[in-house]
Amino acid sequence: LQRQKEHEVVSEPFHFGDALVTEVRAKKSILVVGLDPQFEYMPPSLAEEMQRAFGSTTEAICRMFHAFNTEIIDAVAGVAVAVKPQIAFYERYGVWGMWAYEQTIKYAEKHGLLVIGDTKRCDGGDTAGAYANGHIGEVPFWGETPNPREPRYGPSTIRVHATTVVPYIGDNCLSRFVKLVREHGSGIFIVDKTSFVPNSSVEELDTVGGVKVWQSVASMIKHWGVGTEGALGYRSVGAVLGATKPDDAEWLRGELPDSWFLVPGYGAQGAGPKDAVLSANPDGLGCIVNSSRGITYPYMDFKNKRYVSNPNDYKTAAFRAAESARETLNNALKCADKYNF
Amino acid sequence: LQRQKEHEVVSEPFHFGDALVTEVRAKKSILVVGLDPQFEYMPPSLAEEMQRAFGSTTEAICRMFHAFNTEIIDAVAGVAVAVKPQIAFYERYGVWGMWAYEQTIKYAEKHGLLVIGDTKRCDGGDTAGAYANGHIGEVPFWGETPNPREPRYGPSTIRVHATTVVPYIGDNCLSRFVKLVREHGSGIFIVDKTSFVPNSSVEELDTVGGVKVWQSVASMIKHWGVGTEGALGYRSVGAVLGATKPDDAEWLRGELPDSWFLVPGYGAQGAGPKDAVLSANPDGLGCIVNSSRGITYPYMDFKNKRYVSNPNDYKTAAFRAAESARETLNNALKCADKYNF
Repeated sequence: LQRQKEHEVVSEPFHFGDALVTEVRAKKSILVVGLDPQFEYMPPSLAEEMQRAFGSTTEAICRMFHAFNTEIIDAVAGVAVAVKPQIAFYERYGVWGMWAYEQTIKYAEKHGLLVIGDTKRCDGGDTAGAYANGHIGEVPFWGETPNPREPRYGPSTIRVHATTVVPYIGDNCLSRFVKLVREHGSGIFIVDKTSFVPNSSVEELDTVGGVKVWQSVASMIKHWGVGTEGALGYRSVGAVLGATKPDDAEWLRGELPDSWFLVPGYGAQGAGPKDAVLSANPDGLGCIVNSSRGITYPYMDFKNKRYVSNPNDYKTAAFRAAESARETLNNALKCADKYNF
Repeated sequence: LQRQKEHEVVSEPFHFGDALVTEVRAKKSILVVGLDPQFEYMPPSLAEEMQRAFGSTTEAICRMFHAFNTEIIDAVAGVAVAVKPQIAFYERYGVWGMWAYEQTIKYAEKHGLLVIGDTKRCDGGDTAGAYANGHIGEVPFWGETPNPREPRYGPSTIRVHATTVVPYIGDNCLSRFVKLVREHGSGIFIVDKTSFVPNSSVEELDTVGGVKVWQSVASMIKHWGVGTEGALGYRSVGAVLGATKPDDAEWLRGELPDSWFLVPGYGAQGAGPKDAVLSANPDGLGCIVNSSRGITYPYMDFKNKRYVSNPNDYKTAAFRAAESARETLNNALKCADKYNF
């Protein structure tokens, strides 16, 4: 995979934390667009076309996902700083699903977008290493000879700029990812506090240290981020922080002043713009906000003429929804006196 | 995917907890063989053959993984109750990696083995649902018409008998998997206590309730397992329990008397047979023990003539290593007076 080859803003060598700063400033946007293709939400016109061309097959479904994603990427490329394909929606279709995931990454990178692969992987030892190699590093490949004891290493076809990691297994998992953050300039967002309710979860348990588990995880994120700071001041080891209470957002920002937070749950999942930007630094940097369905599927609301009045205008709908989300988030930053990038 | 169609022991409808009981009794074995193909460990003769046929390509690597796995499956089919492909080692090769994963599942099922997909997935809401659909349920597909609003549902190409799940996000994740356990008879193993050291991890944190996080997770596993009991007495919602201290194994068995535990870390990862079977019930049931490298790669030790003296005899080496592991584990059960199946 090319790393920003056609995209001139980001300086080499690649550093994810720096790249995000540069992109946010260049696009005046903290918006991330989630690419979570679901069969039931595909535009009927596109579905008909794909079914006609490829039959009632898994191939047709995944080619439809790819075609849909390319339209969305074209629409949002100037407005969003990154796209975030959620791998679950691809991998459940097996080989063809993985094809759509690969092609989507490639297309987004080519069109100047950072790509955050939302994989939430979690394992330890060599297995964590294999996940890290695949998603943000290099995989073993044929060397000069066919002898497997003499491999060379190269980027996998699913490599992204940054991925998400779950901390349950702890150091034995995180260390493998952080090693590659250091070697390749890639980024990771460690899942800390999610936006799901009700919260009967591990992350909300109270520990004897007087803090919740997610606060204890914040210490891990802090520890593993040391030394990943870029020239522009931000680390490549960040956190996933669901839109949450003001106190919690403030607490986490205090712990991790120079980490990027990936904030899911905006839009369709219910959080408002004010909540979504709670953790931003005074310079307006430090958090990026994801919206998936709110950007990709507003065309389904065509009967209410929200953005468009024809379901085939899904690309226009995505563009308008993304522009609107960018403005709304920037306004929320302005109200908090943080629109300073 | 067929579910045990060619395999006559297991009764319909499929129930993972029951199927494991039946298989353990039929094969007198609690051994699970991990299929974690790594390029560097492939037999040189096979590598040469594949590189000659398919060039220095990702396709050649993944066809090699598949060919290797089919040999291992042939070797262990009568000795192991299940195989456990670790998806990390496949997905890092993208499309072709997923092909090898699909084909491996298919081949193992056809040869009478239960398949545990080691995915350790973790997410919430619709995303958790998508993972669950793909790995143990059904995915949306073309219906009678090409209209995506009128889908039908069918098994995905990567569906396995059981998968592993990480509990960090809690109910919002687990509920989606358990729904499909109930609907399709599939199994899940919720990651509770792993075998990795050092243990700077979330699972080992002390909570205010006087228990560790992994003990609190045990309560979740208990809760979500209610109602998944099979006719033979075991639930389809189990736990991943690394080989551990006797007290911990006893404690977890007390909490979850009728759950299956998947025990990793045996063999190459360092745990001995006595530790591996600590959590078995008096009837010898309740735990299955995974060995990956210890079964698949002993041919690499050919210079010491451990099992074989020629590296091309990897299939024979796997068979002998699997037979030996089965006997060693059964002997450990005998010493504990638990070899009663």
